[in-house]
Amino acid sequence: MQLRSLLIAISLTLYAGGALAQQKPDDTIKTRQATFNVVAAHVGKIKSNIDGEYRRDQVLKSAAVIQAIANSGIESLFVEGTDKGTGYHESQLKADAFNPDNAKKLRDAFSNFNEQANQLAVIANIGDKAAVQTQFGKLRGTCKSCHDNFRIDSTAK
Amino acid sequence: MQLRSLLIAISLTLYAGGALAQQKPDDTIKTRQATFNVVAAHVGKIKSNIDGEYRRDQVLKSAAVIQAIANSGIESLFVEGTDKGTGYHESQLKADAFNPDNAKKLRDAFSNFNEQANQLAVIANIGDKAAVQTQFGKLRGTCKSCHDNFRIDSTAK
Repeated sequence: MQLRSLLIAISLTLYAGGALAQQKPDDTIKTRQATFNVVAAHVGKIKSNIDGEYRRDQVLKSAAVIQAIANSGIESLFVEGTDKGTGYHESQLKADAFNPDNAKKLRDAFSNFNEQANQLAVIANIGDKAAVQTQFGKLRGTCKSCHDNFRIDSTAK
Repeated sequence: MQLRSLLIAISLTLYAGGALAQQKPDDTIKTRQATFNVVAAHVGKIKSNIDGEYRRDQVLKSAAVIQAIANSGIESLFVEGTDKGTGYHESQLKADAFNPDNAKKLRDAFSNFNEQANQLAVIANIGDKAAVQTQFGKLRGTCKSCHDNFRIDSTAK
């Protein structure tokens, strides 16, 4: 029984870590911070297109980056233990993210982000500025919800 | 004539900066460093699939991220003046990148990266591990070439 528990623990670690299983926690934190910086940069580009002159081509490109990242398995950047540590700056992830009681909430956060990012890429292709603005609001709602639940507030970006 | 020169200078600045025109240089450096960290992370994932067990699904996802970033207008992250400054760490960009004599070389570096990244995404879809390995080598060649020309060597990643 102890052996079985150990094997399950090893399997879960390998599964959660994926290709990042051999990375040091601080490198995973660094890649997580970089990944969400890139998402934020492209969210900012789309926002500037909604607030100002709408350049469809730019919105398509930025929506494609957010979509590709959202589909790339970002859960592998949330390896247990990476709430503590320093990547580019101190981790802002709440330990709550790894509380088994929150496992479904965390999974839902990933899948909501993924779903709204996919939908934004579709609407950026076929919709006008108003349609993109509506869908963009839904995408940003998934960012805010996940940050409210799992990110420690900080001035660090 | 002075007014004309001023207008041209303003136009060039707006063109080069795009949506990032209003960003502080250090924020542009930070986003550039984050962007290439994300590219490197997905290059690493593809490499681990070539060196070990080949999971096509993972390769497709990582190739899609690299492709979307390569198509997103990364030249807007290379705004004149951003060879000096600190994002997540000190800028590693050589001042050479903004030497007018190197303008074509820099443009070619972006377009080569873009072309090989697009090709990798195609081959990840239709090719086997060996075909992906060959194309992956071509993509990494564009990274190395640009780093050799325009990046200051450093232990910082």
